[in-house]
Amino acid sequence: MHLIQEEVNFKAVVQNIYKDVKDIEDKGELASYIPELARIDSKNFGVHISTMDHSNFGVGNCYDKFSIQSIAKVLSLIMAYKILGKKIWERVDVEPSGNAFNSLVQLEAENGIPRNPFINAGALVISDILLSELEHPKEEFLAFVRDIANQPEIDYSSKIAASEKKVGYRNIALCNYIKSLGNIKNEPEDVLDFYFNLCSLEMNCMELSQLFLFLANNGCRISDQHPILTEQQSKRINALMQTCGFYDESGEFAFRVGLPGKSGVGGGIVAVHPDRYAIAVWSPKLNKKGNSYKGMKFLEAFTTESKQSIF
Amino acid sequence: MHLIQEEVNFKAVVQNIYKDVKDIEDKGELASYIPELARIDSKNFGVHISTMDHSNFGVGNCYDKFSIQSIAKVLSLIMAYKILGKKIWERVDVEPSGNAFNSLVQLEAENGIPRNPFINAGALVISDILLSELEHPKEEFLAFVRDIANQPEIDYSSKIAASEKKVGYRNIALCNYIKSLGNIKNEPEDVLDFYFNLCSLEMNCMELSQLFLFLANNGCRISDQHPILTEQQSKRINALMQTCGFYDESGEFAFRVGLPGKSGVGGGIVAVHPDRYAIAVWSPKLNKKGNSYKGMKFLEAFTTESKQSIF
Amino acid sequence: MHLIQEEVNFKAVVQNIYKDVKDIEDKGELASYIPELARIDSKNFGVHISTMDHSNFGVGNCYDKFSIQSIAKVLSLIMAYKILGKKIWERVDVEPSGNAFNSLVQLEAENGIPRNPFINAGALVISDILLSELEHPKEEFLAFVRDIANQPEIDYSSKIAASEKKVGYRNIALCNYIKSLGNIKNEPEDVLDFYFNLCSLEMNCMELSQLFLFLANNGCRISDQHPILTEQQSKRINALMQTCGFYDESGEFAFRVGLPGKSGVGGGIVAVHPDRYAIAVWSPKLNKKGNSYKGMKFLEAFTTESKQSIF
Amino acid sequence: MHLIQEEVNFKAVVQNIYKDVKDIEDKGELASYIPELARIDSKNFGVHISTMDHSNFGVGNCYDKFSIQSIAKVLSLIMAYKILGKKIWERVDVEPSGNAFNSLVQLEAENGIPRNPFINAGALVISDILLSELEHPKEEFLAFVRDIANQPEIDYSSKIAASEKKVGYRNIALCNYIKSLGNIKNEPEDVLDFYFNLCSLEMNCMELSQLFLFLANNGCRISDQHPILTEQQSKRINALMQTCGFYDESGEFAFRVGLPGKSGVGGGIVAVHPDRYAIAVWSPKLNKKGNSYKGMKFLEAFTTESKQSIF
Repeated sequence: MHLIQEEVNFKAVVQNIYKDVKDIEDKGELASYIPELARIDSKNFGVHISTMDHSNFGVGNCYDKFSIQSIAKVLSLIMAYKILGKKIWERVDVEPSGNAFNSLVQLEAENGIPRNPFINAGALVISDILLSELEHPKEEFLAFVRDIANQPEIDYSSKIAASEKKVGYRNIALCNYIKSLGNIKNEPEDVLDFYFNLCSLEMNCMELSQLFLFLANNGCRISDQHPILTEQQSKRINALMQTCGFYDESGEFAFRVGLPGKSGVGGGIVAVHPDRYAIAVWSPKLNKKGNSYKGMKFLEAFTTESKQSIF
Repeated sequence: MHLIQEEVNFKAVVQNIYKDVKDIEDKGELASYIPELARIDSKNFGVHISTMDHSNFGVGNCYDKFSIQSIAKVLSLIMAYKILGKKIWERVDVEPSGNAFNSLVQLEAENGIPRNPFINAGALVISDILLSELEHPKEEFLAFVRDIANQPEIDYSSKIAASEKKVGYRNIALCNYIKSLGNIKNEPEDVLDFYFNLCSLEMNCMELSQLFLFLANNGCRISDQHPILTEQQSKRINALMQTCGFYDESGEFAFRVGLPGKSGVGGGIVAVHPDRYAIAVWSPKLNKKGNSYKGMKFLEAFTTESKQSIF
Repeated sequence: MHLIQEEVNFKAVVQNIYKDVKDIEDKGELASYIPELARIDSKNFGVHISTMDHSNFGVGNCYDKFSIQSIAKVLSLIMAYKILGKKIWERVDVEPSGNAFNSLVQLEAENGIPRNPFINAGALVISDILLSELEHPKEEFLAFVRDIANQPEIDYSSKIAASEKKVGYRNIALCNYIKSLGNIKNEPEDVLDFYFNLCSLEMNCMELSQLFLFLANNGCRISDQHPILTEQQSKRINALMQTCGFYDESGEFAFRVGLPGKSGVGGGIVAVHPDRYAIAVWSPKLNKKGNSYKGMKFLEAFTTESKQSIF
Repeated sequence: MHLIQEEVNFKAVVQNIYKDVKDIEDKGELASYIPELARIDSKNFGVHISTMDHSNFGVGNCYDKFSIQSIAKVLSLIMAYKILGKKIWERVDVEPSGNAFNSLVQLEAENGIPRNPFINAGALVISDILLSELEHPKEEFLAFVRDIANQPEIDYSSKIAASEKKVGYRNIALCNYIKSLGNIKNEPEDVLDFYFNLCSLEMNCMELSQLFLFLANNGCRISDQHPILTEQQSKRINALMQTCGFYDESGEFAFRVGLPGKSGVGGGIVAVHPDRYAIAVWSPKLNKKGNSYKGMKFLEAFTTESKQSIF
């Protein structure tokens, strides 16, 4: 049975679904909280798939850069996890968080330990860890990302970072609050600076799918089988993306798409099918839960048609 | 690679791990909140696996009945879902809930719609639905469960139900609270009576693994390919068990075991590997998150050794 | 200066303000959650004042009975306080509660100890205390109330009590929740039965102002100087009414009226000026915070005109 | 009866109680969260009373300056209230807040409107108002305070302000959080700078009691009957101090002392008896609720002995 699945013609499936989803009405809205994101052309729509057997296929705006935003939280987690190993879980938990609404109460009740590394509280703690562990945090983190992706021109957008910093009152609040609870070791200002830069990373769908492919390959970069993470660690990242990757829509995504993945408010989504492929989608308008409207539609149709859900 | 997985000798793997886990120190504690559960012999330890290719294998106390408790929430959800279809999601959401601590605030903020059907609030709403839809709720639900499992002697334990009722103040509170918010239609007393009975169902590991096998088979009972749920519905139940099946340890379970599953405070756990098998484990002592201590250890070792995680 | 205050002609002030307030538009709404209260003639408006120098004066519907509802929480507190003394504060706190919204979270965080005896949680704990301390709780409590007021015909309304019981899901939830936290000793059903009866007490403005006058008299009934409470205890009740007597409008009442007092959703308000008088007002329509719309207007004008605020 | 109260020999009462309270064991603890406060000599104990009939009496360290901390929140409120009038209540509410624990949830639920001006959230909003209304906020506020008190040498402590700023993560969090909810108009950094300066004001008991005396005098400075606030506004401030002046001990203070008042973590307390006097107490060690241990003891004994409670 699995043999049959391997033979799916990804190229054809991607092409067909791309065409279908391109034509449906986009009921989403552009992220408006920072001007830089609100200015994007909402018609952009790109998809790129990279498979374990070295085939690559992209369509639409798959080579156009966009702000990966929260998808970067997976990258910082990977780097911190690689450095600290299991000790990282003393600083951040691995459980779904329920809704944002209660997150501050939860932090107080649980001594500043965020529920998982993908809510903002968790990503701030991970940023704090990298700040403590790296000599030149921004440079070393960027080098790390470029290295996994084999893409030396991946970079931060200083414009986006500055724009977020200007209106990032809630993140400033969160970071200072966790500091007051003892789970941020550096100065909040420095942690936030690193965090806003992190979220400003710009990549395209091709780069994203190639970067994340190592998570489909037990933690090893596909080009040279170089281990980025151990097999166990790679499984952990996938489990986390499965249960916590889509804000308040993680359960819905698990059902509709059935793959570990992560979304960002820039409209990007990346998903991983262990042992098979990584796929990245970009369409800037977001549904009410903050995930790309067309991106969700595409991935749902894609896993349904290719029978590639893990469930 | 997948060919290799199909050839796993489940019998040998189960036997070996059972032997290993049986000997480790049980650091769990018996559920103490109702006397009936606290009286169980904590040495009990059973495992049973049922696979898609009709093989069955059990070890230890796999034929001894135990109180399945919250595992029954999956069964009531299945029945209500079969009856109402998608409309069921107007009454209960499908997202992980974060911790119990905030659940009452969440209910108020979200108009009495529980976060998912596996937290108590959600299971009470599902019970309310069945009460409205069935003429003889207890009888019809029991018949439904017996029918899926092909086990006509599965039954409620009136002793356990009565015992829970006596000390179930928090559930009484929850049910009346949701009633005040408008998402319980019947009298709370009747809903609670049905709910306490539901949780008192007694089954053994063999019955559980055979019952849940239809979720590995796209919703069809394996013995006769009779559809219990549609393929889509079956996928939904698996996604829900994956993201919400283990209270505050769902994320940890997703990582350690990597399968959809559900646990109960009676010490039972059932897990499903789509397209492959269903497995049930029973060991009464619970870890701090309320899941069977040895059950978790067994399943973790089992999916690691058999390389059967979905991640 | 205080000499001047003593010489206020209460009768004239009451009459004038009554006339003024009678004519203003009543922007309140009848309590609608129980049919019995929604059926009241909303035109009712009565006032009665009883002073330390034995003068009594009433106007409007001051001799018509109404459901005193939450005002009864002061009476049950007084009886429990008289019996237990200071030990009562181990079961209930004396601090304002903030809003209802968080009350359930607060209870969990503080081990089932309600913030004060006038929120429902607190009144349920007080009811539980009386149930434990009295042999015939309903009868003895009623006798106690009749005795303070010198009004042997004060009585419960079984109609109102039954009506509340039927829709009292939130109170049932609350009582069972506190029971689960260990701060209710009797069966919730019995506590609730007593509580619903308590709130169903019917009195008129004359009876209310005469009953509460002992709190202006250092705890002694004015007719015979019989001590109901000690001077210290009486001061405590007044302080509690000052800080917690008007739900989410206690601060506003402290400012506008400046007297200790207590309101009920039946539209009654009673207020006490230590060393001077007790005054009761009744007008059934409630403002958005659940306090009598015209009652608040009357008392504000009354204390302003008579310069009788404690501030 | 009130005539008798007027004749109380305040001097003798203050002296006697001071002597008694000086000798009791101080079970409090120094505020430790900023080094500057932890370094104070905990033996300091001063009291000063200023009465409406121009008598002044002090004892102990009543002329030693200390950090008035949260007492300053009353002063900023007075200035903002004087400028904006009633419109101020659109930005901050007047109700007791319940406990700190829920304050962030409350803010979110109520659109950034703090429960009252004496919790930190409220004082930050008041600071924001002054920042918008004043050209030279720090200078003009200081001049305002000096003017009411007739004490031109009252000043900020730049050391204390800097010390608080360094560890004020929770206040930084709070301010940015309210900013994100829209109820802070200026840059959080500027609001916090003003706020930390505000709280660093240093005064002695004599200055405090003379400053607050205008609140006992219907809003007029006693020396020249110059109106600082209208009578109505003065009553409002007193009502607010009564219901919200002592953190989680406001209810207890209302009972034990029975006067409007305000405390600070520097160990100061000021209380006002309308029409009679203002009194200030200072003793640095704090009880568990954050109010001066000996200060509370002194005021309780003082109002009991002088029968000066408002209840």
